[in-house]
Amino acid sequence: MQFNIENLAQINTPEFIEQVKDKIDGKTKPLGALGQLEDLAFQMALIQQQQNIQQKLDVAKAAVFVFAGDHGIAAQGISIAPSEVTQQMVANFLNGGAAINCFCAANQVQLHVVDTGVLTPLQHPNKSAYLQNGSFIESRIAAGTQDFSQTSAMTTEQAQACINQGAELIKAYFNQYSVIGFGEMGIGNTSSASALTCLLTEQGAELTVGRGTGISDEQYRLKLNLIKQSVSRVKQKFADKNLQPLDCLAEVGGFEIGQMAGAMLACSEAKKIIVVDGFISTAAALLACRINENCRDYMVFAHKSEEYGHKLLLAELSAKPLLDINMRLGEGTGAALSIPLIRSAAHFYNNMASFADAEVTKVV
Amino acid sequence: MQFNIENLAQINTPEFIEQVKDKIDGKTKPLGALGQLEDLAFQMALIQQQQNIQQKLDVAKAAVFVFAGDHGIAAQGISIAPSEVTQQMVANFLNGGAAINCFCAANQVQLHVVDTGVLTPLQHPNKSAYLQNGSFIESRIAAGTQDFSQTSAMTTEQAQACINQGAELIKAYFNQYSVIGFGEMGIGNTSSASALTCLLTEQGAELTVGRGTGISDEQYRLKLNLIKQSVSRVKQKFADKNLQPLDCLAEVGGFEIGQMAGAMLACSEAKKIIVVDGFISTAAALLACRINENCRDYMVFAHKSEEYGHKLLLAELSAKPLLDINMRLGEGTGAALSIPLIRSAAHFYNNMASFADAEVTKVV
Repeated sequence: MQFNIENLAQINTPEFIEQVKDKIDGKTKPLGALGQLEDLAFQMALIQQQQNIQQKLDVAKAAVFVFAGDHGIAAQGISIAPSEVTQQMVANFLNGGAAINCFCAANQVQLHVVDTGVLTPLQHPNKSAYLQNGSFIESRIAAGTQDFSQTSAMTTEQAQACINQGAELIKAYFNQYSVIGFGEMGIGNTSSASALTCLLTEQGAELTVGRGTGISDEQYRLKLNLIKQSVSRVKQKFADKNLQPLDCLAEVGGFEIGQMAGAMLACSEAKKIIVVDGFISTAAALLACRINENCRDYMVFAHKSEEYGHKLLLAELSAKPLLDINMRLGEGTGAALSIPLIRSAAHFYNNMASFADAEVTKVV
Repeated sequence: MQFNIENLAQINTPEFIEQVKDKIDGKTKPLGALGQLEDLAFQMALIQQQQNIQQKLDVAKAAVFVFAGDHGIAAQGISIAPSEVTQQMVANFLNGGAAINCFCAANQVQLHVVDTGVLTPLQHPNKSAYLQNGSFIESRIAAGTQDFSQTSAMTTEQAQACINQGAELIKAYFNQYSVIGFGEMGIGNTSSASALTCLLTEQGAELTVGRGTGISDEQYRLKLNLIKQSVSRVKQKFADKNLQPLDCLAEVGGFEIGQMAGAMLACSEAKKIIVVDGFISTAAALLACRINENCRDYMVFAHKSEEYGHKLLLAELSAKPLLDINMRLGEGTGAALSIPLIRSAAHFYNNMASFADAEVTKVV
């Protein structure tokens, strides 16, 4: 059991924690032979604080929420795609044609799409009719952020609204799900996540800026310089005052990143299992943890993205993701793919026989 | 598309291969953004040789076959458990209490248990009644192998019978499954797999011998020496003649390893997708590939086991497994856990929209 569980260790009794460990160690397998799935079962049992550890971990029902938003900085040409693709991909989600639709369908995961501020709102007579097994949620802050290389991405009020609205919208689903995955869509949002990571970790842009969806060398240099310039702008602005997590969001963040962070904070308070997708979702996760460090204990990291800066974020959060299959797509695709592993961990914890149950000679 | 597909490249036309590539590249995602799942979809489409690539890849129905057998070398005390645990665990499988039962149930995978030569055959009035969604298959060669540190593990006839019986038993299921996973149970079988790997790869025992289910330093040294001694015995015996793959099986193999290899060979001939589990299953996979190298193209490697020698085997087979979550259990547990990823790859290949379908601006 290797991850930090500071908050979980506080909210559970030492006796209960010992009971959970014993239950896992008593299963008919060599000690520790299920690796990360044992850590995951341990974490989930402690999140759910089941005083009776025979009680089932209800993780069969799971959902991924994809938060979409546009970014003013996209106008600088730091992505392979123009901002209109954000809205087109939201339409693709509603029509069931995107990768995240396929992975949710293949793994019995429900899908909810949140418009946090796409440049042009989707015009459709009945938006939700197009999404099977899910919903379309309007939670718009504005028509895209401002270009953060020039000015603040959003006002402090908008940043606070992101946190509040994200929390509000997710709460409506707490009676449905124990496991909630987080993904995103937004042209330009690797730039926002990179700048946010620089500010939250105080690392240089060289460690946080990657190729996004596949930009050229020239675009990469442009992107790198814009992020450096943006970080300098913010540091200068806050030279005389403390830079708070919410300030970081307001200065360089995105509406989808802010609402993900708000929703994650609400999930941790409600003892939900948070499944974090790739680079941008993990930047939101770090933001949430900087607002309330207890949030970390409720997070499961789905996959290691190929996007360069993800490694730094994962290290910062002491996270070892479940999957590492060279993906770099976003949309919550990694989160959806990790849910069968999460279910499997719960299933062995609940149902696997102990040496005593099975009359197997204990081999440790 | 990075894996070797020499046989698949021969049995498919260049035009069809190009069609499959174009279909994957035309999906609404950045080029290559689904990483290993794209390679997997490519491999599966080529295995199924669908002339009409719109036709569905039927991978929804999948099964894991767990091959169980005992090993004479277990009497040397190189495992944490006595041979009786093999039979106890087979009973645990039939009762639904083992890890593989939980992972199959959590992921809608059927489970079949094969007795290839457990020391004492399971006595039970109605063995199959205990296994939900699967079957119990008797395919016994003998009551365990001989101690291969002293003599041949089995006769040449028994080795050939392993290949034949494995092929026969799996063929009965070809009308049910497109995806067939391989796992095993047998106290002492990491020793057998280590020795087999030494003989098939001509590498030293230091690179193939691990801790199995968790032996002490002293047991490890004993195990290492026994494997070295066994390999010397075989090399001496075959000093004047060619050591064939079947000889390797006869000298140091196990009934479960041999029957897995035979079944894998039959699967490749029938264009089934073979899912290889951990160290012992991968040793069987290497044996199968040494008997017929075409077999490799039909294999998907489920996970990287913590068992030390697995790394060498994976390198020998140029395999990059789907999962790496510190597991070291066997039973086909990694195979069962990888099946949702395999289904997800098929699902995006079949159902994800292209840029043209979805009217999304092509971003490459």
